[in-house]
Amino acid sequence: MAMLGALKRLSWELHELDLGHEVERIQGPPTPANFLREYVSANKPCIFTGCVESWHATNKWSRDYLLDKCGDTAVTIDVTSNGRGDAVTIAEMEDGNTLECFAQPWQEKMSFGEFVSYLESSRESTPPIVPYLQKQNNNLLEEFPQLRGDIEDAGPHWAMEAFGAPPDAVNLWVGDERSVTSFHKDHYENIYVVIAGTKTFTLLPPSSVYRLHLGTYPAASYTRVPKGDLVVQLEEPPRTVVWSPVELPSSEPGSPSAATAANRWPLFFAEDLPGPMRCEVRAGEVLYLPSLWHHHVTQTANDEGWVVAVNFWYDMKFDAKYAYLKLVEDLAAQAGLGPSTMQGCSDG
Amino acid sequence: MAMLGALKRLSWELHELDLGHEVERIQGPPTPANFLREYVSANKPCIFTGCVESWHATNKWSRDYLLDKCGDTAVTIDVTSNGRGDAVTIAEMEDGNTLECFAQPWQEKMSFGEFVSYLESSRESTPPIVPYLQKQNNNLLEEFPQLRGDIEDAGPHWAMEAFGAPPDAVNLWVGDERSVTSFHKDHYENIYVVIAGTKTFTLLPPSSVYRLHLGTYPAASYTRVPKGDLVVQLEEPPRTVVWSPVELPSSEPGSPSAATAANRWPLFFAEDLPGPMRCEVRAGEVLYLPSLWHHHVTQTANDEGWVVAVNFWYDMKFDAKYAYLKLVEDLAAQAGLGPSTMQGCSDG
Repeated sequence: MAMLGALKRLSWELHELDLGHEVERIQGPPTPANFLREYVSANKPCIFTGCVESWHATNKWSRDYLLDKCGDTAVTIDVTSNGRGDAVTIAEMEDGNTLECFAQPWQEKMSFGEFVSYLESSRESTPPIVPYLQKQNNNLLEEFPQLRGDIEDAGPHWAMEAFGAPPDAVNLWVGDERSVTSFHKDHYENIYVVIAGTKTFTLLPPSSVYRLHLGTYPAASYTRVPKGDLVVQLEEPPRTVVWSPVELPSSEPGSPSAATAANRWPLFFAEDLPGPMRCEVRAGEVLYLPSLWHHHVTQTANDEGWVVAVNFWYDMKFDAKYAYLKLVEDLAAQAGLGPSTMQGCSDG
Repeated sequence: MAMLGALKRLSWELHELDLGHEVERIQGPPTPANFLREYVSANKPCIFTGCVESWHATNKWSRDYLLDKCGDTAVTIDVTSNGRGDAVTIAEMEDGNTLECFAQPWQEKMSFGEFVSYLESSRESTPPIVPYLQKQNNNLLEEFPQLRGDIEDAGPHWAMEAFGAPPDAVNLWVGDERSVTSFHKDHYENIYVVIAGTKTFTLLPPSSVYRLHLGTYPAASYTRVPKGDLVVQLEEPPRTVVWSPVELPSSEPGSPSAATAANRWPLFFAEDLPGPMRCEVRAGEVLYLPSLWHHHVTQTANDEGWVVAVNFWYDMKFDAKYAYLKLVEDLAAQAGLGPSTMQGCSDG
């Protein structure tokens, strides 16, 4: 089909011109001009190493240090039964039937100290429970003011200078390897700093939106029922969400095999298209995740069983690249490969 | 038609999101980061005022000064009968027939002093002759080394820092109001500094390529025949050039009326599409002309009858914006609105 052929040529052109097939890893902080010219202007991801060595966060944020500084701090925790908050899920509903829906996490308030105990004890829980501290409302600056001095609180100085304004939000993420973030995009420029553990990002450029098999799903939420279990309930009044159902194959229970995944999501796993860009961001490394890139995130815990990260969201520019992306969405919709107006605004 | 509709929506989206309908005019030099973020990354033109006041060029380059410093300098001059070098022209051929072709200027070597006399005396010549000093081969640095100290020879410091490398070429332009540069694009980032007179740029963004009515024309050149007249001769061996025939209506002899132009080039003059962006760049002002923007240039002479400019060509990045543009060219070709691979590499 003409439209799909044009979109596929665009995907190849972009990788061959500029992206290559691996995320670049650059030693040391860039200058603001270099960062803007080579990465932001190009909407191209990059990992910068050796940029946050002077942060107390990278040197001091052990379990004991954070419990000492933040034990009594009130936090809001996302809870699911499978580590997949904000994801397309085949859920068993209260009536016993299963339904494919967009399942949002249950939220619970507790102290940070209680969260740490909960994260650790939940590893043994039956039925399974996965807590994740990931409230993306500027939670680091607003809920953890005592940690402000442990980071550059407007983000790495070269990023702040390049973007020309302080971040809209600075978020703290604490979880473990059980949490997975499904494919989505954010309308922000993202500087993602891993403090403990490793995050594995699987990335697709904005113009590959036609490969995500976007669909429309009923919105639902995990809810804790009186006897203590988590169940998935449809939202009332009903609402739908456009989201990608694509899962990455793995040997984890509940994950699809490579053959199943390729069969269900042929455009994502197409052999005649560039593979998604996969990169590991390790403790002390900084990922520049450009605005509107689709990303899926898994994580590997450190020796203390934790994954800790801080991210900075800066305003993105709605310029020529965004107008071009609208054209791509328009063509994808005409080719029957997605709705022309898309949603998707949480993060991983 | 679906493709054309998608391209038209892109044109509106781009102007509504970011470009507006007038080229911004900013007082004073930008910081490199601001210039990159707001203009280069966005591929958005801008005029900067008050940036080259310290250049000797803007203070000293009178007719007498340039004749004194460069009178004996050897130069190469473009000559046409109508001021339209590198343009689609309906030419009277030697056999008496007329032919629509892509006509390139005749080139003559002389001293700068002789050029100045030629430019002035040619105003009275019959048949008409229009000389233009515009050799775009880094002529300022290579042919006029004595003028190097009169400018920042790597371009304005903020531009040089933003682009991260010295320019590939620094060109000197000397002519008068009789010379017109037809629509074309350059594969460079362009910093265009007007020193004397005024240049009027009519601009279309790269993604409006489908509005230029690109066609394929036989390549020809002005040639001076032994009796002294300029004639247009087809190239041997034959070669074709893809170019835009669009001319802007004006009251000048030989220019189309508004009604004729709108009739011949309906997509360019379409009332249901954003108008081209028109801007006057005056002496002492700096135009940032982003890579691949289509531009048409006319000029107005100063009191001495001259228009003088210096431009700096910096390497462009072939990144996501370029890949997206290839998609647009692909769609335009499918819609029958232009060849999928285009040429066009001189400048105005």
